[in-house]
Formats: sequence, structure tokens, C-alpha cells
Amino acid sequence: MDLTTLQSGLDTIWVVLTAAMILLMEGGFALLEAGFVRQKNAVSIIMKVFVDITFGALIFFFFGFALMYGKDVSGLIGSTGFFMRGDLSHISLSISHDTYWLFQCAFVIAVISIVSGAVAERINFHAYILYTIAMTGLIYPIAGHWVWSVGGWLGRLGMIDFAGSAVIHALGGFSALAAARIIGPRIGKFAENGSANIVPPSNLPLASVGAFILWFGWFGFNSGSTLSATNGSIGHIAVTTMLAAASGGAACILFTMLRYRKSDPPMVINGSLAGLVGITAGCAFVSDAAAILIGAVCGIAMVFATEFLESKGIDDPVGAFPVHGISGSIGTLAVGLFAKPELTAGVGRSYSGLLYGGGFQLLGVQALGLAVVSVWGFALTWIAFKGINRAVSVRVSRDEELVGLDVGIHGVPAYSQDTDFIELQQLKMDYKQ
Amino acid sequence: MDLTTLQSGLDTIWVVLTAAMILLMEGGFALLEAGFVRQKNAVSIIMKVFVDITFGALIFFFFGFALMYGKDVSGLIGSTGFFMRGDLSHISLSISHDTYWLFQCAFVIAVISIVSGAVAERINFHAYILYTIAMTGLIYPIAGHWVWSVGGWLGRLGMIDFAGSAVIHALGGFSALAAARIIGPRIGKFAENGSANIVPPSNLPLASVGAFILWFGWFGFNSGSTLSATNGSIGHIAVTTMLAAASGGAACILFTMLRYRKSDPPMVINGSLAGLVGITAGCAFVSDAAAILIGAVCGIAMVFATEFLESKGIDDPVGAFPVHGISGSIGTLAVGLFAKPELTAGVGRSYSGLLYGGGFQLLGVQALGLAVVSVWGFALTWIAFKGINRAVSVRVSRDEELVGLDVGIHGVPAYSQDTDFIELQQLKMDYKQ
Amino acid sequence: MDLTTLQSGLDTIWVVLTAAMILLMEGGFALLEAGFVRQKNAVSIIMKVFVDITFGALIFFFFGFALMYGKDVSGLIGSTGFFMRGDLSHISLSISHDTYWLFQCAFVIAVISIVSGAVAERINFHAYILYTIAMTGLIYPIAGHWVWSVGGWLGRLGMIDFAGSAVIHALGGFSALAAARIIGPRIGKFAENGSANIVPPSNLPLASVGAFILWFGWFGFNSGSTLSATNGSIGHIAVTTMLAAASGGAACILFTMLRYRKSDPPMVINGSLAGLVGITAGCAFVSDAAAILIGAVCGIAMVFATEFLESKGIDDPVGAFPVHGISGSIGTLAVGLFAKPELTAGVGRSYSGLLYGGGFQLLGVQALGLAVVSVWGFALTWIAFKGINRAVSVRVSRDEELVGLDVGIHGVPAYSQDTDFIELQQLKMDYKQ
Repeated sequence: MDLTTLQSGLDTIWVVLTAAMILLMEGGFALLEAGFVRQKNAVSIIMKVFVDITFGALIFFFFGFALMYGKDVSGLIGSTGFFMRGDLSHISLSISHDTYWLFQCAFVIAVISIVSGAVAERINFHAYILYTIAMTGLIYPIAGHWVWSVGGWLGRLGMIDFAGSAVIHALGGFSALAAARIIGPRIGKFAENGSANIVPPSNLPLASVGAFILWFGWFGFNSGSTLSATNGSIGHIAVTTMLAAASGGAACILFTMLRYRKSDPPMVINGSLAGLVGITAGCAFVSDAAAILIGAVCGIAMVFATEFLESKGIDDPVGAFPVHGISGSIGTLAVGLFAKPELTAGVGRSYSGLLYGGGFQLLGVQALGLAVVSVWGFALTWIAFKGINRAVSVRVSRDEELVGLDVGIHGVPAYSQDTDFIELQQLKMDYKQ
Repeated sequence: MDLTTLQSGLDTIWVVLTAAMILLMEGGFALLEAGFVRQKNAVSIIMKVFVDITFGALIFFFFGFALMYGKDVSGLIGSTGFFMRGDLSHISLSISHDTYWLFQCAFVIAVISIVSGAVAERINFHAYILYTIAMTGLIYPIAGHWVWSVGGWLGRLGMIDFAGSAVIHALGGFSALAAARIIGPRIGKFAENGSANIVPPSNLPLASVGAFILWFGWFGFNSGSTLSATNGSIGHIAVTTMLAAASGGAACILFTMLRYRKSDPPMVINGSLAGLVGITAGCAFVSDAAAILIGAVCGIAMVFATEFLESKGIDDPVGAFPVHGISGSIGTLAVGLFAKPELTAGVGRSYSGLLYGGGFQLLGVQALGLAVVSVWGFALTWIAFKGINRAVSVRVSRDEELVGLDVGIHGVPAYSQDTDFIELQQLKMDYKQ
Repeated sequence: MDLTTLQSGLDTIWVVLTAAMILLMEGGFALLEAGFVRQKNAVSIIMKVFVDITFGALIFFFFGFALMYGKDVSGLIGSTGFFMRGDLSHISLSISHDTYWLFQCAFVIAVISIVSGAVAERINFHAYILYTIAMTGLIYPIAGHWVWSVGGWLGRLGMIDFAGSAVIHALGGFSALAAARIIGPRIGKFAENGSANIVPPSNLPLASVGAFILWFGWFGFNSGSTLSATNGSIGHIAVTTMLAAASGGAACILFTMLRYRKSDPPMVINGSLAGLVGITAGCAFVSDAAAILIGAVCGIAMVFATEFLESKGIDDPVGAFPVHGISGSIGTLAVGLFAKPELTAGVGRSYSGLLYGGGFQLLGVQALGLAVVSVWGFALTWIAFKGINRAVSVRVSRDEELVGLDVGIHGVPAYSQDTDFIELQQLKMDYKQ
């Protein structure tokens, strides 16, 4: 046993364990979304998560990974690694290329799961499968290439996004916004005068536990993004992740208490998640105090964004855009403000945010990158939905929507009561005979 | 601090963490099974999982481990290590013997949990405890000894089963089949003309999340089976595990869409699990492409097996046999087809499957081992149930079954509604006075 | 890459991963408590868990950690490390100070979550926030300093409490007892003649899965407390943790079968947890056999303690005191009986329990420490509740309690049925027109 083998083993288990944690987040998304939507659509949203994790993984294996991390062509796209074959020698890591694939695969599945929430309770299942293929095979890989791949043009410009506030969350969130707009609100969500009706969540305990599972997975998401267990930032990343999540949740507990005179459970759940999204770009680069601030700002911005969407007649049943789009944007820009030079050294070059004497340069690059990624996600999703709509309707029929997608599309309700009493009656009759 | 201490620490945390992940799978089994059965039996199935993890662990500590991994006698049985005492020097690992016990303990608990699903909604609780003792103390340890222990006769013949498609899943699945047959179908499952009635799952969101937790645990199950963090196969194992699960689920999404004109949620859940079961034997030995193929075949075979059982009047409420018995068999045989010599070198000797020039030798050994383990599980479970039935009825009374095992046996329903309205009425009356 | 960097990386990922596992226990607490209480309070109990993890983390960052682990003043209190700044050089670990903070933060959140269960279904949300601040910023840190910090007076006397049967569980449990007494029983829990009414748990499957998640997290809790991955005790700790949990659960399965003629699910759930609590102090120091004994004793004692509380008219809806207070006490004392000198060497000095020739010395110190910590928790919680009650009522109004805290305080029910039928009626009318 030599030191290199030991290091490689250590890095490998670190990446495998954190990848497994990120994949468990699919269970978290499933619970969160099934709890937030109505009973009649609880299975259908979970089936979408199954599409994410099954089709998403395969498509990303077949060609998504190649377009994202394959050998760079002009800073725009990858060109090797289809089916994990071909020259990937530009990826120089202590872990194997397929271990790296697994970790990145867990990421792409998270992106598509963000969108699934925004189109809940009304999207056609076939259309969703097609969109999943587009997102995991094309939309996300290309944007990801620009920022994260060796040679990607945004990365070369100096954009930094440690674990994906922009690449994962802003992209996913703006794609969710486009999808929600194009598919339109659920029947009955808005009254004729435009005022929003409340659609009460069917199962808040489930949704809450989904949030705790997501929180757990986020430690894998952010800390695991070091891809190496000997990276000195791991502890700091875990701490800023914790502080931002706590701050986002606490801010929403207090803020909704002030604003609505009650601490609003769905907002508190989403507030913690907003904090987590917000710190994802800067978890390795900002101070503890900045993490607390970022979390609180993201939590409160999420509340306003939720209200804003409702006021505009856009129906995003689980708050995908407020949580991921808005907080992802804030988090990406926050790096331009709060990046501490001594903390960014680990990415190979030292960057300074506006508050640490770096001027507007980093902030400008972050803003550019954020704009590019968000517009890309929004536009490509718009195009994808328009295209898919020519093949199969992106929206279920009115009858299917009213009866619910569970029974309407999948033929089975999420929750079934027993028919005990009927059987007991039968039993009594049997005994009488 | 020297290299050996470091390596031993690394291996120890790897095994402890993956063992914990496998033990969490009991939570996954509990959710999966409670979600698939009717409300009136949701607690009773979970109580069986508690029996698995409590009695199973103790019995395996007292004597199961000794019979399985103790010093070999004639290739048939272990003979040392009762209460983890005695000579275990033939087990040569960088981790301690009790750490090794913990990991193996997590395995035996999984086996018995497979059976619990097949006898759901009708087994007598006392009988289940007795059967758990038989399975974890005798049936599984002896079969496991043959394949996995130093000196076991099937292992010496050359059978390879990396993490247990045969030893865990085929054994558990065929035991489940025997148990389901001998205990008979639930009242009302089959009409008098033999046609099967649908018993709708009580809580599909719970069942789905159970599947995601199982999926998460499976990374521990398969990758952890290296028992060493510096084993070069860990990344590859995790990747094939992911691909087979994705493929099994995706195949069932598409196949049930073709066959039933709707993507059937319970089948998709079980399809992912079937993919996981199928790759368990070969996760370290087969290529990525083979993993995808194995997953898809297992997923679709599970659908047919489910239909076949129903057509034969066998009632397996959660699909234990189709998922574990059938996919475990396919996975065990698949090693005989797809084992790549360069990937099997890690087990100490190089094996070749039929498709890699190894001829029928490995395939033959795998088939023999599979047959032995399956027949053993089926036969011993049959004998155990017959024996237990002399002491205590293996089946609950008709009344208990109709009212449900939760109230009938455990005295408490799984779900209770509030009596708010009664209390509110009381409140109003209080105020009037 | 040198050996020291590798070791530091290994220790860091060990602590980060186990801290994440402990934080996931909040999801376990949320499920356990939401499942045990009535539907009308399921969200409110989860909101308290959100307060624990958000406010708890921030307060512990601001000043709790400093008072607990800062530079010692007279053995009584810490004085540095507010906002993780200042001289913490007395903490000498291979992991960074902020990684250490994260792990300890996960602990403090567990403590406050213990109390949340005892005051379920009737505490005022504002009062709970204030109490959380008191507990995580003052009560726990000071008691923790005495036992665990460099220079703490109980630690210097020789008290050993590996992962916190006393510091976490007895403290939390006795605080829970004080809180439950001072706030009084739920309306309708006790009849006028003092006999206890049964309040059936609303969702036992959720509660059970909460227990499995807690069990999983406990491996992080106990094994992670080594704070170093090369600590030779890790395997042994994980094994004794498993055995005690299994034994506590199995004991309750058998004992409730004898005592109530049915295996009582809530008691079995709590029995496993009682075993886990009981082994927490001695997991590194006692033998496997002692672990099994401790688990069984804790499980059965929990049953009696539950009955005792009811007979005294104290309403502890989830059994916080029986599980944490009683088992934590037993576990702390058990170290005084069963500590094996060769196993305690890892804490820097060798201790012997009464049964290993150490006489009454260790047992006496453990008893003293337990008494101090328990009285401290009980008394300070009493004072805190009395003080808070002057500012805001610690109990909700009678109307809020009757209607449930979910709707009464948070404005949203935990579970909502669909209004499908109404919509379907609407649909039919639409079609007629």
C-alpha cells in the first residue's frame, strides 16, 4: 500500500458517498413535491422524479456527459466521452472517470427535478419524458460546459460557481419559469379576476421531511464538489452550507411571522432550501458571516418572489423558480461581492469580490455568466416545450387534470382507504349462514 | 501515524458508513411495504421489519455469524465465532472482526426483510419471530457459508456473487415464494374463478420514497462489499449499480406504457429495484453496457413474473419473488455471461463469462450455485413454516385478517384521524354554560 | 501529498459525513414526533424542529460554542470563540475548528429536539423560540463545558460520557420533564379522576421511519464522536450501538407481548431508541455483552417510566423523558459498572467500572455527574419557562389547542383532502352548458 493508492481510495469513497447522498435528494424532491401538491397528483409527481433519475442517468451516460465534459471545441461544447468512451485525458483527477461521471450524473438529475415541480399537476407524462431527454442530454450539458469544463468560455472568462448556484439552480429555476409559463396555470389556481386561490398542500409532514433529506444531501452536493477528500476547504464548505440553510429558515420564520402574523410552514421549508441554493456557488469562497447574510437574503427574496409570481398569474406549485431561480441568481452574484481572495486560491487562481478590493471585475463576470445561463435555460426550455407540443400535447386534458394525474394518467390513486367495513359486513353475513 | 494505521482507519470508516447505509435500507423496506399493503396492515408490516433488525441482529451475533463465517468444516458450515468469540484468524482483513460482523449483519437483516413482504397482511406475529430466528440463525448463514466463506464448497467450485444476487436475493426471493405459497393468499385476493382482484396500495408516495432509500442504501450494499476503500473497483461498482437501476426503471416506464397503456407506478418502483437486485452479483465484474442490459431484462422479467404469480394464484403482496427471486437469478446467471476477465481479477482469480471466451464453465457453476441456493431457501423455508405451524398457527385468524393485523394483533391503527369536531362541539357547549 | 495531509483529509470527511448523518436525525425527530402526535398538530411539531435546526445552529455559532468549548474559566464556562473567533488553541484536533463546530452543532440541535416532543401539541410558538435560544445558547453549553471541555470540572473529576447519554440525553430528558410539568397536560389527556386517556398516534408508519432514520444517524452520533477516523474504537462503537438498539427493541417486543398481550408498536419504536440512548455514554467503553444488557434494561425501563409518568399525571406525548431521561441516566451509570480498562485507554486514561475491579470510584463520579447535569437541565428549564411565561404565555389558548396548532398557529393543516368531487361536479355542469 502506497500513499497514492491510499489517496485515490480516499478520494473515491468520498465522491461515491457524496454522490449517493446527492442521489438520495431525489427521494427528498419526491417527498417535497408530493407533499406540496394535491393528493390526486402525488404519484404523478413522483413518477416524474423516477423519469429524472432513470432516463436522466441513461441519457447523461449516452451523450450528456460527452457534450459537457468531453474534449472542448471552441469553448462551446464537448466532443468526446459518448458512452464514457474516447479520449477524456484532459480530465485529470485522482478518481476514475466513471466515478466522476456518477457525481456529475447526480447533478444533472437534480437540475431536471427542479423543473418537475414547476409543471406539477398538469404536464403530459410523454411530454415530460421528451423534455427530460432534452434537458439532460443537451440544455444542461452545454451550459455546464461553458462554466465548468476545461476550456469552457465562461470559465475562461473567470466565472466561478463552486457547486452550481448558476449552473444547477439558476438554469433549473429559469427553465422551470419558462415551463410554468408555457404550460399555464392549473385549473382553478387563479380566479377570473386574476386573484390567486390557495391550493393547500396535501401532506406537509412529507414535504418537511423531503426538505431535511435535501438538506442532508446538500452536504454531499457542496462538500463533495471538491472531488477530493484532502481539499482543505471541505470543513469550511460544510459550515457555510449549514449556516446559510439555518439563516434562510430562521429568516423566513421571523419574516413570515411579521408579514402574515403566523410562521408559514411552506415558506419556512422553502426558506431553508433557498439558503442552501444561495450558498451553493460561494460555499467555498465566502466567510461564515457572508454565508449567514446570503442565506437570510435568499430566504426573504424567496417570499417576495413567490408573491410576485402569483401576482403575475404564473403558477409554480412548489416554488421552483423562487427557490432555485432567484436564490441561485443571488448566490451567483454574491460571489462577486463576498469572494475572499485567500479562500478562492483553491480553484487555482485567486479572485476578489467587490468587498475585498476586487472591484467590479468578478461581479461583472458573475453577472454575465448568470445572464447567459439563465437566458439559455429559459430560451431552450421554451423552444423544447414548443417543439414537443407539436408531437404530443404538453398539457393533459381538462378531464385528466380535474380527476387528477394519478388516476387519470397512471391509473392508481396515491392513497387508498381500506374497504374494511365492507369486508366486515361480509364476515358477519358469512357467520350468520 | 503510519500508513497501515491510516489504511485500516480508512477501511473501517468505509465499512461502518456503508453498513449504516445498508441498515437504513430497513427504513426503506418499511416504507415500501407499508405503502404497498393496505392501511389496516401498515403497522404490522413495519413491526416485522423491527423483528428483522432486532432479533435478526442478535441471533446473527449469537450464532448465525459463526455458522456462516466461522472456521470451515468440510466446506459445509462454520464452527467458530459464536458470540464473536473463538478463532476467526482465517478471516484476514484490514478491518476488525466485529466491524466485519456489522457489515454482514446488515446483509442478513436484508434477507429476512425480503420474506416479510411476501407474507404481509396475514402472518401470525409469533410465527414470524420464530421464522426470523430460523432464517438469520440457520438458513441464510449455511447457504452463505457455501458461497462466501473461506472454504465454502460453492465458492471453491468457482461461483462468484459479488454482493449477493444469489446469496441474498435469490435465497430471500425463493424463501419468500415458499412462504407465500404455504401461507396462502389473502382473503379476497382471488375471486372464486381464480381471477386476481386488485388490492390498491395504501400509500404510494411512502412506497416510492422507500425505493429511493433502498437505492441509496444499495450504493453501500454493493460498493461496501469491497470491504476495503482502496479496492480499485469501487467507482465501477457504483456506476454499474446506478446504470442497472436506471435501466430497470426506465424499461418498466416504457414497457408498462406499451403493455398497459399507462406507466404503472408500482411496476416502475419495482423495476428500479429489480435492476438493483440484478446487478448485485456482477456489479464489480461486468461492463457498463452489460449493466444496462441486465437492468432492463430484470425490470421486464419482473413484470412478467408478477403476472405469472397472479395467474397461478400465488399472493405476494409486494412482489418479493419477482423483484428478488427472479432478478437475483438473472443477475447470478448474467455473471456467467458477461464477466470480463480483467474486472474479475480483483477477486483473486480471473474468470471469463461465456461472451468473453470463458465457455460454459463459469455459467455452469453459476447455474449450479443458483439452483442450490434457491432450492435450499425454498425447501428450508417450507420445512420451517411446517414446523412452526405445529407450535403456533402461521396464519392469523379470519377475524384478525379482516379487521387488519394492526388493530387485530398490535392493538393500534396505523393512521388515526383526530376527533377535533367532537372536541369543538364540547368547547361550544362549555362556552354556552 | 504527505501522510499528515491525508490523515487530516480522512478525519475531516469522517466528521463532515457523520455530522451530516446527525443532522439528518432532525428529519427523524420530525417524522417520529409528527407520527406520534395528532394530525392537527403534525405541522406544528415539525416547525419546532425547524426552529431547532435554524435558530439552534445560529445561536450556537454566535455564543453557545464559545461558552461550551471556549477557553476554560475556573472549570465552569468557556470564554472564547464567539462567532468562531478568538483563541481556540486549546482545542487540538486534526480537523479544523469550524469542522469541529459543525459536529458539535449537530449535537446541540439534537438536545433541543428532545424537549420539543415533550411540549408537543400545546406550546406557544414564540415561547418555544425563546426557550430554544436559552437551551442552545446557555443551558446545554454550560453543562456540556463541565463534562466535555478542556478543563471542565466534571471531566476533571473523571466523568466519562462518550457521546452523551448524560450531556445530551439525560440533560435533554430532564429538561423535557420540567417543560412537560410546567406546561401541563394536553386538554383531555387525563380524565377528571386522573386516569389517562389514550391519544392514538396519527401516523405510525411515519413515526417508525423516523426511528430508522434516527438509528442510522446514531452511527454517526456515536462513531463520529471519535472525531478521528483512525481511532481504533470506531468499529467497536458501531457494533455496541447496533447491539444495544437491537436489544432494546427486542426486549420491548417480548416484554410488551407479556405485559399487554400484544407487541405494542409505539413501545417497540421507543424501545429501540432507548437502547440507543443507553449505549451512547459507554459505546466505546463496554463489551458487546454489556451493550446487549444495557439495551434491554433501557428498553424495559422505558416502558415502566412511561407508565409511571401517566400515573403521575404528567403528559409527555412522545415519551421524551422515558426514552432520553431514563435511558440516558441508566447509560451514564452503566459506564460506572461496565467500563473495561482496556477499552477506556483511548480517552487518555484508563478507567475501570465496578465489575472490572474499579470499585465505586467511577460509578460515584458518574452518579455525581448525572445528578448535576440532570438537576441543571431540570432547574434551568424550569426557570427559563417561568421567565418566558412573563413575556409570552408558554401555552397556547384553549381554542388554539382544541382546533390544533397547525391551523390555530400556523394557518395550514398538515393534511388536506382534495376537492375533486366539487371540481368534477363543476366539470359536469360545464359540459352540460
